[in-house]
Amino acid sequence: MDTNLKLRIVVDAMGGDFAPANEVAGAIEALRASGNAFEVILVGRESAIAEQLRTRPHEGLPISVVNADEVITMEDSPTAALKQKKNSSLAVGMNLHKEAKGDAFVSAGNTGAVLSAATLILGRIKGVSRPTIGAFFPSEKGVCLLLDAGTNVDCRPQHLFEFAVMGSIYAKRIIKYENPAVGLLNVGEEETKGNEISKETFKLLKNSSLNFLGNVEGRDILKGTAQVVVCDGFVGNILLKFGESVPSFLKSKLLSYAGGNVFRKGLLGMVRGALKTALKDMDYEEHGGVPVLGVNGVTIIGHGKSTPKAIKNMILKAAEVAKAGINRHIEQTLAQITTQQAHSKDEISVAHP
Amino acid sequence: MDTNLKLRIVVDAMGGDFAPANEVAGAIEALRASGNAFEVILVGRESAIAEQLRTRPHEGLPISVVNADEVITMEDSPTAALKQKKNSSLAVGMNLHKEAKGDAFVSAGNTGAVLSAATLILGRIKGVSRPTIGAFFPSEKGVCLLLDAGTNVDCRPQHLFEFAVMGSIYAKRIIKYENPAVGLLNVGEEETKGNEISKETFKLLKNSSLNFLGNVEGRDILKGTAQVVVCDGFVGNILLKFGESVPSFLKSKLLSYAGGNVFRKGLLGMVRGALKTALKDMDYEEHGGVPVLGVNGVTIIGHGKSTPKAIKNMILKAAEVAKAGINRHIEQTLAQITTQQAHSKDEISVAHP
Repeated sequence: MDTNLKLRIVVDAMGGDFAPANEVAGAIEALRASGNAFEVILVGRESAIAEQLRTRPHEGLPISVVNADEVITMEDSPTAALKQKKNSSLAVGMNLHKEAKGDAFVSAGNTGAVLSAATLILGRIKGVSRPTIGAFFPSEKGVCLLLDAGTNVDCRPQHLFEFAVMGSIYAKRIIKYENPAVGLLNVGEEETKGNEISKETFKLLKNSSLNFLGNVEGRDILKGTAQVVVCDGFVGNILLKFGESVPSFLKSKLLSYAGGNVFRKGLLGMVRGALKTALKDMDYEEHGGVPVLGVNGVTIIGHGKSTPKAIKNMILKAAEVAKAGINRHIEQTLAQITTQQAHSKDEISVAHP
Repeated sequence: MDTNLKLRIVVDAMGGDFAPANEVAGAIEALRASGNAFEVILVGRESAIAEQLRTRPHEGLPISVVNADEVITMEDSPTAALKQKKNSSLAVGMNLHKEAKGDAFVSAGNTGAVLSAATLILGRIKGVSRPTIGAFFPSEKGVCLLLDAGTNVDCRPQHLFEFAVMGSIYAKRIIKYENPAVGLLNVGEEETKGNEISKETFKLLKNSSLNFLGNVEGRDILKGTAQVVVCDGFVGNILLKFGESVPSFLKSKLLSYAGGNVFRKGLLGMVRGALKTALKDMDYEEHGGVPVLGVNGVTIIGHGKSTPKAIKNMILKAAEVAKAGINRHIEQTLAQITTQQAHSKDEISVAHP
């Protein structure tokens, strides 16, 4: 295989809470797991990265390092940090991707800053009003992609419609759902339910040729009624954080249930094992981060607490997304809609993504 | 004790999915549990109620029956049903309460119809723009009252502010939290976070003398950060239904985890027992329904599937709320705010409820 054709994944080595240790370890794991199917470019403080590489065998792995002296922290204001820290690992890494010296960018850093960098440096895909980040929810029937998960708190119907298009394409091309069903998150199933924005969005979705199920309710997410669930980032973020808090709530309730009872305590250990296995889908380590959809490039954002395993899965996901070329599908689908909207104000028909 | 001074609880005997059986059984249980501390007026089809009473010993219990021939079903449109079925158990019962022939009204019927009836027949408390229904969430530190839970999907900041006032008063007077902390549900803790409506609401709450904690996030609900959580009915309803779906999702995941494994199946039985005990707070049967806040009267709405135990708890709750006279507190607190708003446009200071 010609190594020149290999994808190059740019990794923000200073992003997460345990950077650069977990980033370096995760990159090595990703390369080993994929059989060196791509290259990794680690971006960050050269000396700190070198120190991590020294302690980890990586002979023969296609890893290179690009120096960037500054670090954007979780406390930094996203837009201010991008302006002030021009030499941050985030800015340098994203620019490498922009300049086509890398094919995808991965970071476990400040989510807002990564999103801003993706939007400002890579730019939006033609036809996309607002880039979006989704979240993966577990369900009785497999993973459910909910978007927007917090990027856009005030949305117009057109934005929600575009989220549906992008989510559908991602669910089909990356999650491999054959004909992903799209649900509009609402307070009731009937078309007349909801707030003004959801009623307008319903019309846009109904008149599209997306596989639109109609409105879905809060209970439908875990049931797996739809593979793609659309809402604004205000609702999405609150729901995501609520969902993430369920396991620790259960743990706390089970601990107080067990109390000082030895039998119950023993049972508790087993219960937690069972829950952990049963809730594997909820584990962000497994998902490989979330993609920024709607920008001219591939950006995968991970949890600040990302373990080496999580970083590994993010890098593998980035390679997969870069290979699938979903941005072309997004642009084509949205262009088709615009053309059709120009021809008919009454009906918006989109080819299936 | 002079029985003339006893509270009279009006029960919609035709409301729930298992009416009138569960309503009659629940009324009898409530009277026995309280030692006949109040009277119960069952409203509905006399013959159907009589049939239920015949099979259930109730000698010496202060139960009376008021006939109402029509029944509003779960499928009925709330406002249309109220107009068309003037002789429904809901309309007749609510009017008894309105005419002071009863001190509180309880129904496990069509939630939208009960809410409409409460608003239209009883009217709003002076100073209240929109009546609201809350929901009880379990938390690591006891029950959390979230409102609005679905009544008002489009809200202005003033509405959310009033929900906070009403929720505070309910949490103090009925749930017995000494100084209930109020949180505004949002996508981040900082004052500048959120959509336009939440930013405006933050200012109103900050300048009040409610025990306002600031913004709380989705994860704070189950943590028990605040005793009262305020949001619009769109977010509240989606969150409530999502939360309600967690137990059956866990059950499904645990079942597939157990599979055909005999040991795991045995374990599963124990796990479900543990979860059930641990999640008792989540059980709507225990809460005794949710109150309609902001109307001139006491209305408790229960789940359509209400068991006799749930109905019993709703009736006991109705008696408690009627005794506490919280509407007077709501009116006084809101009147105080209006006066103070007239004096100062910059600062809204309310006496602690």
